[in-house]
Amino acid sequence: MAQPTKVLVIGGGIGGFGNALALRRLGAEVELVEQAPEFGEVGAGLQMSPNATRLLREWGVLDKAIETGVAPRYIVFRDALTGEELLREDVTGEYYERYGAPYIVAHRSDLHRLLMEECQKLGVILHNDVRVAKTENVEADGRTTARATAADGRVFEADAIVAADGIKSVIRAQLSDDEPVGSEYVAYRGALPISQIKHAGDMEAVVVWMGPECHLVQYPLRQGDLFNTVAVYRSKSFAAGQLVYEGDAELREAYKDCVPEVQAALDNLSHVQRWPMFDRVPIENWVDGNVALAGDAAHPMLQYLAQGACQALEDAAALEAISAKSVFADRDNHDASQWNAVFREYNAVRQPRTARIQTTARVWGESWHLTGPVERTVRNMLWKSADRHGIWEYTDWLYGEQQYTAPVESSEDATLSSTTR
Amino acid sequence: MAQPTKVLVIGGGIGGFGNALALRRLGAEVELVEQAPEFGEVGAGLQMSPNATRLLREWGVLDKAIETGVAPRYIVFRDALTGEELLREDVTGEYYERYGAPYIVAHRSDLHRLLMEECQKLGVILHNDVRVAKTENVEADGRTTARATAADGRVFEADAIVAADGIKSVIRAQLSDDEPVGSEYVAYRGALPISQIKHAGDMEAVVVWMGPECHLVQYPLRQGDLFNTVAVYRSKSFAAGQLVYEGDAELREAYKDCVPEVQAALDNLSHVQRWPMFDRVPIENWVDGNVALAGDAAHPMLQYLAQGACQALEDAAALEAISAKSVFADRDNHDASQWNAVFREYNAVRQPRTARIQTTARVWGESWHLTGPVERTVRNMLWKSADRHGIWEYTDWLYGEQQYTAPVESSEDATLSSTTR
Repeated sequence: MAQPTKVLVIGGGIGGFGNALALRRLGAEVELVEQAPEFGEVGAGLQMSPNATRLLREWGVLDKAIETGVAPRYIVFRDALTGEELLREDVTGEYYERYGAPYIVAHRSDLHRLLMEECQKLGVILHNDVRVAKTENVEADGRTTARATAADGRVFEADAIVAADGIKSVIRAQLSDDEPVGSEYVAYRGALPISQIKHAGDMEAVVVWMGPECHLVQYPLRQGDLFNTVAVYRSKSFAAGQLVYEGDAELREAYKDCVPEVQAALDNLSHVQRWPMFDRVPIENWVDGNVALAGDAAHPMLQYLAQGACQALEDAAALEAISAKSVFADRDNHDASQWNAVFREYNAVRQPRTARIQTTARVWGESWHLTGPVERTVRNMLWKSADRHGIWEYTDWLYGEQQYTAPVESSEDATLSSTTR
Repeated sequence: MAQPTKVLVIGGGIGGFGNALALRRLGAEVELVEQAPEFGEVGAGLQMSPNATRLLREWGVLDKAIETGVAPRYIVFRDALTGEELLREDVTGEYYERYGAPYIVAHRSDLHRLLMEECQKLGVILHNDVRVAKTENVEADGRTTARATAADGRVFEADAIVAADGIKSVIRAQLSDDEPVGSEYVAYRGALPISQIKHAGDMEAVVVWMGPECHLVQYPLRQGDLFNTVAVYRSKSFAAGQLVYEGDAELREAYKDCVPEVQAALDNLSHVQRWPMFDRVPIENWVDGNVALAGDAAHPMLQYLAQGACQALEDAAALEAISAKSVFADRDNHDASQWNAVFREYNAVRQPRTARIQTTARVWGESWHLTGPVERTVRNMLWKSADRHGIWEYTDWLYGEQQYTAPVESSEDATLSSTTR
């Protein structure tokens, strides 16, 4: 039996493990390197919409994800100034049928561990304490391979490299000189035992309270044992360059006009850390030979559509679908010469979709944070209209079934141009 | 036969003639006084929604109004920056059936003349050059009557006075110390022969182009012989106190980012006069004994819902409906002692509705003029949602069948308190 193709994944976050898992399932030999001394995820809750839970199910980990999380019944939007409920999406029943999978919420660390354990179970080789400094393509013996060099000089060789090294990606910097873009918004998070929660919100819903230049999100985690709260507001102190902020006076001030329910929910936040919200402007090219960006390294987005982790998993699904028909077409005899073509098709399929999500997430978030009374009235009318008339026209493009491979024509074009290059 | 009750109407605009007509039809002896040396209306086109055309039909003048105007097929909303069509309301067919009357547009002067001629035909006595300086109630022989005194000393006696003396109403000033509120927006208008129009818009529609801090409205008049254009924008020069403005540089500047179609339409405006847009904050009380405010004197509103004239006609319909069952209950023996009760019921019925329209018109206008890209996107989504899902939820309250008299309970209360006072 021929040697399996070897893939190196850079970055041990949800995106890195998702990609490692998807390619390992096809039979690749996968190594994953992570700069941190231990694997783990910081943060609190995470939403997984059906476009992502469909993938978790395909990879055999959905049931575990639901077990560690919660499958809420509703996504609810409220006006934080009046308390008015604007929209209540039932994400069970017809929604479930339409998108073929549940909407779930989970603790980031739970989902992360679940993907990591699945990778370990399937034999992905994990390395900590590897800070990759650069990648390069190596031409030898008529074939192209890829090489990653760590800051400490260690070298990792593979047929292909997937760089899922996050929004501050070192590998992206080799392809583009763009920088993360600060939104001036910061988040405080908290995932507390339900017993410590004074004013628990709706235990069967993800509730979003939309206020002027602020919002609050609440939902249960771990089968209701934890309660998750996220407060996001425009921070003058952060905008002024104050990266660390002591105390919560600014936070309280940001929510002072909100209904008491929202103000009380600020007690459920951890004040240890605040998270500035960054994204980047979409770039066209994610690929250099046999090295490709994935996840936040490729398309970091603001969190308003809750798609950061979901899109990282879609990246993995696309690489899986595309490589399955070329690199892994013969499962006993992998064709490593196809990696560049795989990456270019992946780039072509995924870039327009993720760019749209990046752009939409910005607008979506700003629509939550509108300040003027007219603007808020118009926004509320739109949300209420969706409540009355249905949400499919707003959700189908995002949650509907995806085509992860290029249409046949483009695929042939790509092969052709690859051959003639 | 007993003497008919006598009503004095102050103001010879559309509201004044509407009220004179409605009360004259019931048999009142009606005199109407106007401060201008001649009767007439300035301005250009006027929209009459079904809530008003139903009244014109009841008063027997709808056919003439349609003859002098146009019954458009559509009301169309477009984004002035992109040209995108956001909403196309068909105001024939189902809309006509639902509201029981057509949506029409007419030249203000045509509608004004039509109401005036109908008043003259029915025997309303008209006086020009009467600038009413004050009104008062007169108690004599156990009955209350009303008296208007002109600036030149002439005195007009009547059982009741309807003061339709416009947004700068002298009579309102007797009841309230509020002032007109400037919106900082000004309008340029034009109603030109179709032969002089370079870029005529859709000849079967009222088209509204919504731009940042500006909008443009276009529709045909007089069976298509005239073409009406209104440009409304936020005027820095007006806000700065410059009441008269020479030239159109500011106007052109205000529309500079709009599609060429909109910019070209500015050629169709008359630059002789610009009209600052004022309204007032709603007040609760319109009545002093046997004197009542009506039309703009009672509830001046911004033009964005096109309800100024329509609501003046609704006032007339309410006075007609209420007085028909008391003052005119016996058509051969009018009960003039009921005028105060009539006016108080009219006030109670009409004030909440017109206050809502005044308030909504402001918000509606501001939603047309939104400047930020997110705000405009959300607004456009709302309009497009209405285009897909129907407009009834937004229009029923305004155009649907009205109850012009108070519910029986309140009506009895009113009579009771009137008797016991």
